[in-house]
This record gives sequence, structure tokens and C-alpha cells, in this order.
Amino acid sequence: MTTQVILLNGGSSSGKSGIVRCLQTLLPDPWLAFGIDSLVDALPAKLRGADGGIEFATDGGVRVGADFRTLEAAWMAGVAATARAGARVVVDDVFLGGAASQRRWWKALDGLEVLWVGVRCAASVAAEREIARGDRDQGMAASQADVVHEGVEYDLEVDTPHQESLACARIIATRLG
Amino acid sequence: MTTQVILLNGGSSSGKSGIVRCLQTLLPDPWLAFGIDSLVDALPAKLRGADGGIEFATDGGVRVGADFRTLEAAWMAGVAATARAGARVVVDDVFLGGAASQRRWWKALDGLEVLWVGVRCAASVAAEREIARGDRDQGMAASQADVVHEGVEYDLEVDTPHQESLACARIIATRLG
Amino acid sequence: MTTQVILLNGGSSSGKSGIVRCLQTLLPDPWLAFGIDSLVDALPAKLRGADGGIEFATDGGVRVGADFRTLEAAWMAGVAATARAGARVVVDDVFLGGAASQRRWWKALDGLEVLWVGVRCAASVAAEREIARGDRDQGMAASQADVVHEGVEYDLEVDTPHQESLACARIIATRLG
Amino acid sequence: MTTQVILLNGGSSSGKSGIVRCLQTLLPDPWLAFGIDSLVDALPAKLRGADGGIEFATDGGVRVGADFRTLEAAWMAGVAATARAGARVVVDDVFLGGAASQRRWWKALDGLEVLWVGVRCAASVAAEREIARGDRDQGMAASQADVVHEGVEYDLEVDTPHQESLACARIIATRLG
Repeated sequence: MTTQVILLNGGSSSGKSGIVRCLQTLLPDPWLAFGIDSLVDALPAKLRGADGGIEFATDGGVRVGADFRTLEAAWMAGVAATARAGARVVVDDVFLGGAASQRRWWKALDGLEVLWVGVRCAASVAAEREIARGDRDQGMAASQADVVHEGVEYDLEVDTPHQESLACARIIATRLG
Repeated sequence: MTTQVILLNGGSSSGKSGIVRCLQTLLPDPWLAFGIDSLVDALPAKLRGADGGIEFATDGGVRVGADFRTLEAAWMAGVAATARAGARVVVDDVFLGGAASQRRWWKALDGLEVLWVGVRCAASVAAEREIARGDRDQGMAASQADVVHEGVEYDLEVDTPHQESLACARIIATRLG
Repeated sequence: MTTQVILLNGGSSSGKSGIVRCLQTLLPDPWLAFGIDSLVDALPAKLRGADGGIEFATDGGVRVGADFRTLEAAWMAGVAATARAGARVVVDDVFLGGAASQRRWWKALDGLEVLWVGVRCAASVAAEREIARGDRDQGMAASQADVVHEGVEYDLEVDTPHQESLACARIIATRLG
Repeated sequence: MTTQVILLNGGSSSGKSGIVRCLQTLLPDPWLAFGIDSLVDALPAKLRGADGGIEFATDGGVRVGADFRTLEAAWMAGVAATARAGARVVVDDVFLGGAASQRRWWKALDGLEVLWVGVRCAASVAAEREIARGDRDQGMAASQADVVHEGVEYDLEVDTPHQESLACARIIATRLG
């Protein structure tokens, strides 16, 4: 069957965005790219750093509230509808809830052909990249590196410290239906 | 009935984004903001400036191709599904096709309660703002100022040269169901 | 004499950046634009939000420390040297210290032909623009609107709520030597 | 002697910016970061893509004109003055002219203690990173990878495909006076 959605999960600074852009360049069909960053950009400013919304602590921790969960569920429904309407979609997310996050996506993407990809990156390497990026609170990369993969099931996994983004994208591309 | 979608249409540099952010600040419920810029960001880089995608000419003209139209239709379906799933959504778009653009949104948003808002801005003022922004090809603001409103039906119109963004947002807020 | 430096002072969201871009478009010679934002971008991330550096409080207050002052003085010397070396330079700054800030620039720009411009914007209007921009901590615009002008001497002042950016730039342009 | 300026030279997408941010995090003193990108940001929009200014061709080529050279020389004088005034400065540049570019910096930085660092990155790897970044015209990385180092003399060289940014920064840090 034709893959309709590629869903990449990995911690902050694991290299997801680079892989997404390489996939968009590499794949002959046009794929739309959405992700947790595009959802955060769509939120009212007042939900960033506030009760009910999404809060980025200075130690790198991320907390989300009930309002965020409601909007996120509606956004997931929108991503699924975009794919059902015929666009091929690549999504990158950070499964802060591990398996529970995957269940939310399973529910939203019901009936769609999805390729689940784990983007692994050792905590120490992600932490170094976080410093090199300079635009994230330090600590987020290390704290998310392993927890986002707990109990999550994948079709394939890539390992960014050992493979450049384009190499990861090539591996993913070979697995597309 | 409860307004589920606010759809703002206006030319480049007419002041849509400022109004969107003011609405998100002003309105007690959290509203998600999507727009033509978020769609363009989601496109593969190779569809920007290429046959079939979206092309920004140096004279400010914008041309879109068949691939873009297909992806745009799927994206509109996604925006509609997000609203149907319970999130309130504010969208800003540039109706390059005037009434034809509105028909595409009508079809996508079928059954949803939509407030249609025209964001008017005199071509001369939009052109001046384009210079002050400095990040757009000059000419786009003037060339779009009037054409995007041709044949389009609104619930209300705001006029940004005569009203600051927050004042426009307040007027829109009073019209929400 | 030929004006070598245009120095714009005004609070956050008073409209300085728009005026700078209009001046760069309007003036026949190429002018380099530097400003407090470019200095903050040049700082180590660890000096943003830390003792000794520059801290943006959630209420819009800004505090600077000794390390920042030292680097700022060196940066001012660099801006002056750029002008002395023959580039025409437009600078936008926020005189958090009012007249004391101006004295620091007087010292740095000694011997250069400078046009001092005050960018006035009523606190209430600046606060509204801050909401429309959505990328600044709210409160900064209102708290800075008046205090940055205290005791400062100008060659001319512009009033952005009453004039669009390009109109302000035109007024400034007529005063250049 | 105390190193006053670290000057990094390397092609587009060779990894200079990541190394700069790691250096700023790693080094105990605050270092200001300037670079060719900050100069381009300071230019009038009309000098980008125009005769006399700087032009980025769609094949990745970069051409600079006489106006750009004049402004660049004044900017170099400003960077040098910032260092002479007591700030430690790290600069990243792309020596499009190879040895001739270095001579311009030698002249500007006369009398300052400078650590010259070559940032090497194989053309093929830089080209892959360029795809993963997605914000540059493709071809720039490959076309600049070797030519920027022609005839340039360094105190040390780092090789980014074989070392992560932080590792490169640590090597540079050990060589500081």
C-alpha cells in the first residue's frame, strides 16, 4: 500500500527537522511537513508558558496542560484529514508521553497507511547539538532523549549520531510503500 | 451559533498577521492560527520557485501551479477538520483568485460556522508597509491590494490604515457568535 | 557637513526598525544598520537572562549587568569605527538610562557628524503594537515609552502613531547633511 | 599573549555557526560573535541581489560588487575596533577570495592577537547539510568548500564531518592565549 504519513518521533535536537527536509528534497512526490513546532507556532502566545498551555522550563523540562491537549487532539485530526484528502504528509513529534502519545496518533490516523520512525540520538550527543543550536533551553535534549521512545513501536529506527540526515532520509525512503 | 472559524482575507502587508495575534490575545478561548504562510512553510523547498509549486517573482507577482493547488486543497480540508474536532481556528489567506478562492474555502468549510473578514488596506499604504517590513519582494503589496477582494463576500470588513491591529481585532471580536 | 551616523532612540515597539528599513530604501547611498538587537544577537546565550548580562523579565522590565555594559561600550566603539572608516551608519537603540545612555554614545561617536532622532510613540499605542507583534514580553513597550527620552537631546523627533514609517523616514532624510 | 579575536573561515554549511555558539558557551569570558551573516543583515535590502551589492545566484554562486567591498572594509574596521576596545570577538567569514580575503582581515586586524581557524568540510558532506538546512540555495556549499581555503594560512584547522561542533570548539579553546 502507499504510505500516506511518515511519523518521526524523537527528542529535541535528535535531528528530526533535518531528516524531514531531506525527505522533502529526496522524495519525488511533494510531501507536506507538519510538526510539534508548527502546532506551538499556531498557539496563542498566552498559552506558551502558562497554565493549561505548554511551558518550557529553564531546566529543559516541558509541561503541557489540558487546553494544550484539547488543541493538540484537534490538530492531529487536521493532520489526518490532510492526508485523507490526498496530500502525503511527514510529521515530526516529540512523544513526551511515550506510548500514550503514540496511542493518540494511532487514534487520529486510524485507517491511514503510516510509517512509524524512531529517531534515536544518544543523550550526550543531543545535548551537544543543543549547545551548537543555541536557541533551546539547555537540558531539554538530554531529558527527552530516551523517555520519548519508552514503549513506542516503530517500523524502523534511525540513529542520527551515526548517520547524517540525508543518509537517514535515504533509509526511510527505501521503506515507503 | 458559535463561530468556529474566522477567515481573514487581504493582500500582502495589509496587516492580517497583527490582527490574528491581537485576536489570539484578546479572545478568552484559545484560538489556533493557521495561514497561507504556514502552508508555504510546510511545502518542500523545491516547490517554492518552481513549476507546479508557488513562485514569488521579483516584481511581487505570485504564481501557483497544479501541485500547489492539490496540496492547498488537502490543507484546507485539514484546517476544516481541526475546527470540526473542536478547536476554534483563525485563518489568514490571500485570495489570489478572488471569488474563486472563496469558493474553495466554502467547499472545505462546509457546515462550519465561519466569520468572513475582509482586511482592506489602500495599495499605497500597503506598499509603504512592505518597505518598512523589508522581507518581501516589493510590488506584492500593491499588486494584491484590490484584486484579492474582487467578488468576495464578507460578514465584515476592517480597514487597517485607519485602525490599528488591536482596534480591528476588537471589532471582529464583537461579531463572534 | 555630511551626516555620518543617524541615531534613533525610542522604546520597544515604537517603530524604530520600520523607520530604519525605510531609510535604507529611501536614501541613495547605502547605509549600514546596526542596533541594540544586533548587539543582543552577538552576545553569548548565557548572558541573556543571567547576572551580568541582559535579562528580559516577564513583566517587560529589562535589566543589564556589568558584563553587558563592558561589551556594549566596545560595540559602540566598533560602530563608531565603522562610520569613521567611511560607511554611513544608522543605529537604533533603547536608551534605558535616558541621558546617561546618550552620554555613552556621545563619548563613542566623538568627532562624527551625528543626527539624533527621537522616535516617540504613546505608551498606549506601543503596548497595542507589542500585542500585534506577539514576540515580545508584554509590558516592555509601555514601561519604556517615556523613560527612554528623559533628558535626551535630539536634532528632531518623529511621532509614529501619527506618521507611518515611510513618512518618518522622509522627514529624517530631509535633515541629513 | 591573550587572544583577542578568533577568526573562523569555512564554506557555507561547513558548521561555523555551531562552533561559534559552542565557543560562546564553553569559554568562561563573554565573547561577542559577528560574521558575514550579520554584515549581510546590516545591508540595505536593495544591495542584496543587485549590482554593487551581494548577489546569491540560484546555482549557489555568490557575487559581490564595489559597494559591498567598501561597506565590508568599514565593517571589518568596526570589528577590529570592538576588539581593541576590550571585547573578545569571534568572527565567522567565508573567504570567497581565499588568500585575498585573508589579506583584508590582516590589514583590518593589525596589531591584534588573532587565532586563525580553518573549518574544513568535504564538499559532499557540506552539500548534504545544505539540503538538511533547507534555507540556502543548493550548490553554495559544494562550490565554496575548497575555494575558500586556497592560499589561506591557519593556526589550526578543524574538520567538521569528523568532529561534532562542541568537539571542534574544545580543540579551538585549548589553543587560546
